[in-house]
Amino acid sequence: MQVYLDNNATTMVDPLVVETMQPFFSELYGNPNSLHKFGTASHPALSKAIDQVYTALNASDKDDIVFTSCATESNNWVLQSVFTDLVVNGDKNHIVTTEVEHPSILATCKFLEDQGAKVTYLPVNDQGIVEAHTVRSFITDKTALVTVMWASNETGMVFPIKEIGDICKEKGVLFHSDAVQAIGKIPVDLQAVNVDFVSMSAHKFHGPKGVGALYIKDSQKLTPLMHGGEHMGGRRSGTLNVPYIVGMGKAIELATANIEETARKIREKRDRLEDSILELSDTFVVGDRENRTPNTILISIKGVEGEGMLWDLNNGQIGASTGSACASADLEANTVMLAIGADSELAHTGIRLSLSRFTTDAEIDYTISHFKNAVGRLRAISSSFAIQKPTEGGEVKECELHHH
Amino acid sequence: MQVYLDNNATTMVDPLVVETMQPFFSELYGNPNSLHKFGTASHPALSKAIDQVYTALNASDKDDIVFTSCATESNNWVLQSVFTDLVVNGDKNHIVTTEVEHPSILATCKFLEDQGAKVTYLPVNDQGIVEAHTVRSFITDKTALVTVMWASNETGMVFPIKEIGDICKEKGVLFHSDAVQAIGKIPVDLQAVNVDFVSMSAHKFHGPKGVGALYIKDSQKLTPLMHGGEHMGGRRSGTLNVPYIVGMGKAIELATANIEETARKIREKRDRLEDSILELSDTFVVGDRENRTPNTILISIKGVEGEGMLWDLNNGQIGASTGSACASADLEANTVMLAIGADSELAHTGIRLSLSRFTTDAEIDYTISHFKNAVGRLRAISSSFAIQKPTEGGEVKECELHHH
Ligand SMILES: Cc1ncc(COP(=O)(O)O)c(C=O)c1O
Ligand SMILES: Cc1ncc(COP(=O)(O)O)c(C=O)c1O
Repeated sequence: MQVYLDNNATTMVDPLVVETMQPFFSELYGNPNSLHKFGTASHPALSKAIDQVYTALNASDKDDIVFTSCATESNNWVLQSVFTDLVVNGDKNHIVTTEVEHPSILATCKFLEDQGAKVTYLPVNDQGIVEAHTVRSFITDKTALVTVMWASNETGMVFPIKEIGDICKEKGVLFHSDAVQAIGKIPVDLQAVNVDFVSMSAHKFHGPKGVGALYIKDSQKLTPLMHGGEHMGGRRSGTLNVPYIVGMGKAIELATANIEETARKIREKRDRLEDSILELSDTFVVGDRENRTPNTILISIKGVEGEGMLWDLNNGQIGASTGSACASADLEANTVMLAIGADSELAHTGIRLSLSRFTTDAEIDYTISHFKNAVGRLRAISSSFAIQKPTEGGEVKECELHHH
Repeated sequence: MQVYLDNNATTMVDPLVVETMQPFFSELYGNPNSLHKFGTASHPALSKAIDQVYTALNASDKDDIVFTSCATESNNWVLQSVFTDLVVNGDKNHIVTTEVEHPSILATCKFLEDQGAKVTYLPVNDQGIVEAHTVRSFITDKTALVTVMWASNETGMVFPIKEIGDICKEKGVLFHSDAVQAIGKIPVDLQAVNVDFVSMSAHKFHGPKGVGALYIKDSQKLTPLMHGGEHMGGRRSGTLNVPYIVGMGKAIELATANIEETARKIREKRDRLEDSILELSDTFVVGDRENRTPNTILISIKGVEGEGMLWDLNNGQIGASTGSACASADLEANTVMLAIGADSELAHTGIRLSLSRFTTDAEIDYTISHFKNAVGRLRAISSSFAIQKPTEGGEVKECELHHH
């Protein structure tokens, strides 16, 4: 059996999405900007895709949703262009973000610091989230932008976006949220929150890798990141990636159509997996279950290196992660666990399991059994666990976090 | 019969390319940055694609080729990052380009002018190209970058890239070329020219829309445009678009494998089409045939509005263009024709026909016949042609260009 439990890194493209994209490669292949029939033939499908995204997110007709090549682009666009518009060509100089954003936010902030921006990286609480009052206390009259993720890729924890949005509105500061890990997992209603910009990426909800979007409230001004042939109303140039845009529309529709029901089913499987692993001693999961995306578990197995665990799971045909796929190539400690106060040793024990609507009960059964055996094997050879092994059920001293 | 003669706007994805991409949507869908088997399963295909691009362009192992989402991104990247590196954070202030670049160069230059750059837009000669000595005379010690297209999307005319590269090397100035319209049409050997950066886009050579690349000679420093998770060696972040990268590799291999032979066959068809249309009175083609990409004709039909012609061809199921697909939505005059000195009326008479290796002789026959009839129909109702009609074979006075 193969079990893919790394859906926060990327997802399988839903076969229905592949089917929807298919005609636009070698049949309806015209450039939608062309005036002839080959070009206009894709217009109905493009319009439909745009509608599907608006509907899925309850965006207003006054808002813009601009397709991009990925959420990394959407994130870079907002940060770099707000910097251009309000710092370089304005009188602001400050950005507020969190310590646990995705690298596409954090690395862009570092770049903007080199260009003269001041950036505040807010710490997270023991749940791995930033509280709204913390955001409030760091906004100054020089603040150009607050950018806070909707849900964490590492923990699944959902941030108080409604409250932060209200504060930003009250203070007259632009607010961006990276909603890559929220969309398709929990309901996202863009008319229920005050958020100026929202980033998304299709490959996190069973669409293709390499297409995303940026939501722009009230179609407000934002200098483009990609200048050129005035595609997408001049907001994002480059020949439209028709198959992927059409695929993203279909994917977001499928992912959000019955989201409560789908989420409930995924949550059931997730909770069963989580409960079973937590039967092992000296394990804890980051963040309260109720406030997490329904598919995610970030679990620490005391005395077991995350990479060792990953390797053992991999041998069992189970795909998991030690954290962000982007960061995992350098085998570093889980950055969110460090941010919530775990020491380096503990932060090396994080394993992220992320389910999808395609995860089956049989896969969960198999994973539980393999996982438990793996922990046994690895703890048997782990010197650090042997030496420091606390009494059964005892507190994990290295970390502020409560045991589950 | 349907005839697609707008291959400079975009091309059909070769069915062999679609087939190559297929497994990477719903089977080998892992994130290549992930450490488990789902992630690493795509590595052999990605390595192969990279090799295919290096081989097709004869790039050296010391060079970098970085996949992007399109040539618009590659162009924006070079221009904006050279601006950051050498203007904002350096002592240069000047960019040299041409009046006939693609909008993704021209609009980015305009943006950089707003940010303080000085840009020289070089005029073209009556062949629609910029001569190397012209470039030389505008380089100053403040010049950060020269950017000149390899071949024109509108006319197909090939620019003297070797000579311009030698001048830039001699002067110690960075040189970028937008080779979107050259690659797959004429041989491009990156070790035979001194060019620091080269942009390309897969959808111009029967790959998918939404993937491109930037070649970076000697892997030299260039600040990223997309900061984030350190994909592609930190040069371009964002989860890799595995299917399209694999597809681009296959597409460039297919397009360049027998390029002389393929080009010869396309040229034969193009020349036959061109010769037949030129039998009509008061028609001329921009640029010498020998110095054009083998698939392109930009033809002016005196007295016939380009948009009218496009419409008539469209009714005959023939897809053509009045020029750049990017600009055509606003029904403007052909910008290259204006740049080479045509007056506005004449510049409105341009029709671009661009073939591909999939164009058949039967399609050319059909197009010749439909085209000639269309010109007859449209001239019959064109008042401007009726009034100004010159004697058969006479000179077209509005324009410096020689008749063919
Ligand atoms: C929270 C978050 N933001 C941004 C991204 C970047 O998405 P993409 O790889 O599509 O650029 C990811 C995933 O990689 C993510 O999890
Ligand atoms: C010369 C040239 N440069 C750049 C581009 C932009 O390519 P893309 O649409 O892939 O960004 C095009 C085509 O649109 C082009 O013809």
